[in-house]
Amino acid sequence: MPVPETNTNHLAKLLFQVPEPAARQELLHTAQLCLIDYLAAVIAAQDEAAVLNLKQTFASTSFALPALGYQVPLSSDHLALLNGFAAHYLDIDDTNTNLQGHPSGVIFSALLAISDGTESLENLLWAQVMGVELAGQFGHLLNPQLSLRGIHTTGAIGTIAAAAAIAVYKKMSIEATEMLLSIAATQATALEIQVGTDGKPLNAGFAARNAVTAWLCIQAGLHAAPDPFIEDRGWFAALGNYPFNATDLDATWLKPGQIHQPGIWFKTQPFCSEAMSGYAAAQKLHQLGIDMPHCAQITINFPSSVSDALRFDHPQNGQEGKFSIEYVVWLTLNYGVLPTTAFHKGPVPTDFIKDLPKFSRNPMREIPDPTTRPTALTVLTTTGKTLTVRVANPLGSPNNPLSQQDLLAKLLAQLPPYAGATVVNFFHQPIGQQILADLGVLLTKLNNKNLI
Amino acid sequence: MPVPETNTNHLAKLLFQVPEPAARQELLHTAQLCLIDYLAAVIAAQDEAAVLNLKQTFASTSFALPALGYQVPLSSDHLALLNGFAAHYLDIDDTNTNLQGHPSGVIFSALLAISDGTESLENLLWAQVMGVELAGQFGHLLNPQLSLRGIHTTGAIGTIAAAAAIAVYKKMSIEATEMLLSIAATQATALEIQVGTDGKPLNAGFAARNAVTAWLCIQAGLHAAPDPFIEDRGWFAALGNYPFNATDLDATWLKPGQIHQPGIWFKTQPFCSEAMSGYAAAQKLHQLGIDMPHCAQITINFPSSVSDALRFDHPQNGQEGKFSIEYVVWLTLNYGVLPTTAFHKGPVPTDFIKDLPKFSRNPMREIPDPTTRPTALTVLTTTGKTLTVRVANPLGSPNNPLSQQDLLAKLLAQLPPYAGATVVNFFHQPIGQQILADLGVLLTKLNNKNLI
Repeated sequence: MPVPETNTNHLAKLLFQVPEPAARQELLHTAQLCLIDYLAAVIAAQDEAAVLNLKQTFASTSFALPALGYQVPLSSDHLALLNGFAAHYLDIDDTNTNLQGHPSGVIFSALLAISDGTESLENLLWAQVMGVELAGQFGHLLNPQLSLRGIHTTGAIGTIAAAAAIAVYKKMSIEATEMLLSIAATQATALEIQVGTDGKPLNAGFAARNAVTAWLCIQAGLHAAPDPFIEDRGWFAALGNYPFNATDLDATWLKPGQIHQPGIWFKTQPFCSEAMSGYAAAQKLHQLGIDMPHCAQITINFPSSVSDALRFDHPQNGQEGKFSIEYVVWLTLNYGVLPTTAFHKGPVPTDFIKDLPKFSRNPMREIPDPTTRPTALTVLTTTGKTLTVRVANPLGSPNNPLSQQDLLAKLLAQLPPYAGATVVNFFHQPIGQQILADLGVLLTKLNNKNLI
Repeated sequence: MPVPETNTNHLAKLLFQVPEPAARQELLHTAQLCLIDYLAAVIAAQDEAAVLNLKQTFASTSFALPALGYQVPLSSDHLALLNGFAAHYLDIDDTNTNLQGHPSGVIFSALLAISDGTESLENLLWAQVMGVELAGQFGHLLNPQLSLRGIHTTGAIGTIAAAAAIAVYKKMSIEATEMLLSIAATQATALEIQVGTDGKPLNAGFAARNAVTAWLCIQAGLHAAPDPFIEDRGWFAALGNYPFNATDLDATWLKPGQIHQPGIWFKTQPFCSEAMSGYAAAQKLHQLGIDMPHCAQITINFPSSVSDALRFDHPQNGQEGKFSIEYVVWLTLNYGVLPTTAFHKGPVPTDFIKDLPKFSRNPMREIPDPTTRPTALTVLTTTGKTLTVRVANPLGSPNNPLSQQDLLAKLLAQLPPYAGATVVNFFHQPIGQQILADLGVLLTKLNNKNLI
C-alpha cells in the first residue's frame, strides 16, 4: 500500500527539485549577491551596543545550580530546554484544566535554569504560583478555541507563563517585566499536532527555553514593544483572535488562585490526564473481576468537546497510546497494573489491535466542571450482562488529591535508596527556611547517573 | 501627564499582587507539591533514550567555522540567534516582497551556524535559493492577512524557510526533512508589533535559532508529527487560518524562483524597504533644489494596504524612524545624504517634530506589482508652487538593481582596508570552485574587532 503524499511530503519534494543548469546558475548568482549583502549587514552591526551586549550575555551565561543530570556547564536556555523536555517526556508532570496543559514542567524548568542556589525556596514556589496563575487565566480565556484550532497551549501560553514566573522570581520592575513578557510573547507558539511524538515534550522544552532567552535579552539591555498584549495586533489577536482586556482578570486573579481552583492534577501514571477517569473506572471493573476476555463490547463515554487530546482511537505505538483512552482501558482491563513498557516507542501489542473492534466512543458534548472529568465505561460481557462504572474524580485530581506523602513516594521511586532521607528531610522543613543551595546539594545527590 | 495603563502594564501589576499571608502559605504549599512532582517527572525521564540523546547533542554542539565576531566557541543555536539579530539590527539586510520580510538575514545565519567549513559555497547558495523560495511562496499565500493580523513574517515564515534551507544544505532525506520542518513549524511565530524596537531583529535571530534547534533535535534522533502543514490543525490553520494545499505551489515553484520574481530588494540605507521609493523621490526633489525650508506642505502617496510597516507617522526615536516615511523624507529633504546617526536609539531632532504638521499621508488602496513600490511626493512650496515626484523602482529594487560591484562596495565599506582584496577575490572566483573553509579564512580576517 503506497503511503499517501502529505502536504509536507509534497513540500519536501519541492525543496529538492532542481531546475535546468542555466536557471540554476542564475539563481546561484543572485544568492551570492544576497550573501555579500548579508555579510555587510552583519558586520555593519557588530559595533552596535545591542549586538555587543547580546553577544556578551550569551557568551557568559553559565549555570551555577547543579541540577538534573548535567556536569558540564550548559547555558541556561539549553538547560531550560532539556529539563522542560525531560519533565514532559513521560507525560507524568502535572496539569491544570484551564491551561489544558502542563504548567510546572515548563515553569520550574525555566526558574531552575536561571538559579544560582542563593535564591530561597519560597521565592521559587511563589514564582511558580504566579506562573500557574497566568497560565490558567490565559487558558480560561482562550480555550478550548486555541487548542481546537491547533495551538498547543503548554508551549504557547507556557512560554508567557514561565516568563511571568521569572519576573516574579527575579523581582523585576514593572517596566522590565513588560519587556520580558514582550520578548516571550513574540516567541510564544506551539503546534498541538505534536501529540504522540517527541514534538510534544519539545514544545514544553521550547517554552521554558523561550522564557529564559527572553530573560537573557533583558539582561543584555534589549528593549521590545512594551504592550505585547495590546488588543490591536498583539499576541491575543495574532494567535488567539481574542479581544483581550487585562482588567477582565481582576475578578478572579488569585481568588483563590489557579493552583487551587480549578487546581492541579497530579499523575500516578504516564498517560494523558484526560484518560485518568477512564483508567480509574477500568481499575474498578478489573477489581470486580471483569477483564478483557470477559468483554464483548466496551463503550466509553467521556467529554470530547474540551480538547482533542485523546485523539488516537487506533494508536500504532506506545507513545500514541498515551493519548488513547481505548489503549489505557485495554491495558488496565488486561493487567490491572500497567506494564512499565506500555507507553514506550515500540508498537502496541497485536492482541490490542485484535480487541479494538470491541471498543466504541460515546462522546459527551457538554464541558464539565474543570475540577472533574467524568468518564463512564459500559461493558457488555460475553455472558450478556451490562455493567457501567463512572468516575469523575480519579486519584490525583483536585477533588481526590495526592498528598505530599504520595508525591514524595512518587519522587523517591525514581531515586537510589540512599538519597531518600535527604529528600524527605528537605521537603519536610518549613518552606521559609530553605534556600536553593540545599536543593542544589540534593540535586547533586540525585545526579549520580547519566552525567554528561 | 500620567502614562496610560496598558494591558501588559496591568498584567505585570497583577503578577506582583500579594494575597493574605494564610492564603499565600496555602498556595506555596501546593507549589511545593508541584515541585516534588516536577522533580519526579524529570528524574524519571533521565534514562530515556530521547532525553539522553538531546542532552548529548546540546552538550557537544560546537562551532567550527570561524565567523562574524566570535572567538569563544558558541553553540550553533546561539550563533544563529546572534548573527540573525545582527543581520537585521540595522534593517539594511535584503527583503522579498512576497515574504514581506527579510529572508537572507535569517537563512544565512542558520546555515553558517551549522557549517564546519567543508561545505561548498555552491551548496550554501543553493540552500539559500530554496529557503527564499519557500519564504516567498508561503508569504504569497498568507500575506497581507498574516502580517495585518500581527504576525511578523520574517520571524514566523522565516523559521520554516531557514529549516527548509538547512534540509537542502545538509541533503537530508525526505523523511528527515519532514521532521525538521515539523520541529521548526512548532516554534514558528513572531509579533509584528516589535517593529521599531530590538524585538524586530530579535524575531530574525529567533527564527534562525529555531531552525538550528530543529536541526539539532533531528541530530539527536527525535521524531515529530510528520505533516506539520496538514490542513486540519497544522501550522497554516493554527497561525494563518489558511486552507493550505502544497500542490497549489507546483505552478509557480522555481518558475523562475522567488529570488528572481518578485526578486530581492537590496538596501543602501538602514530603513524599512517600504520607504525606499519615498527616499528616492525626496532625493530627486533635493537635487531640484527643494529642501525643507522651501516646503509648506508635503503629501505622501504610497501603498498602505500591503502591510503596516511604515506605522510611525510620529516617530519618537531613530529606531522608530526606520519605519516612518515622514522621517525618511524629512531627513532627505534636509540633508540630501542621510546622517549616520539618524536611526540610532536617541530621540528624533526637535526640528523634525516642528515640521511634522507639514506632512500628510494619502494612502494608495490598490496593492502594487510586488516588484515595484510606487510612491509620490507632492510638495507645495512656500512660494505657492506645486511639484510631484513619483518613484516606483528605487535603486536596489528588482527593476533597478544593485550590481555585484555595488554590493561588494557595501561590504567593503564595513571592512578594514587590508581585507578588501581578499573579499573581492573570493567573490570573483567561480561559485563552483569555492568551499566555505575559504569563507572561514575570510571571516576570520573580518573579525579583528569585538572578539569575545
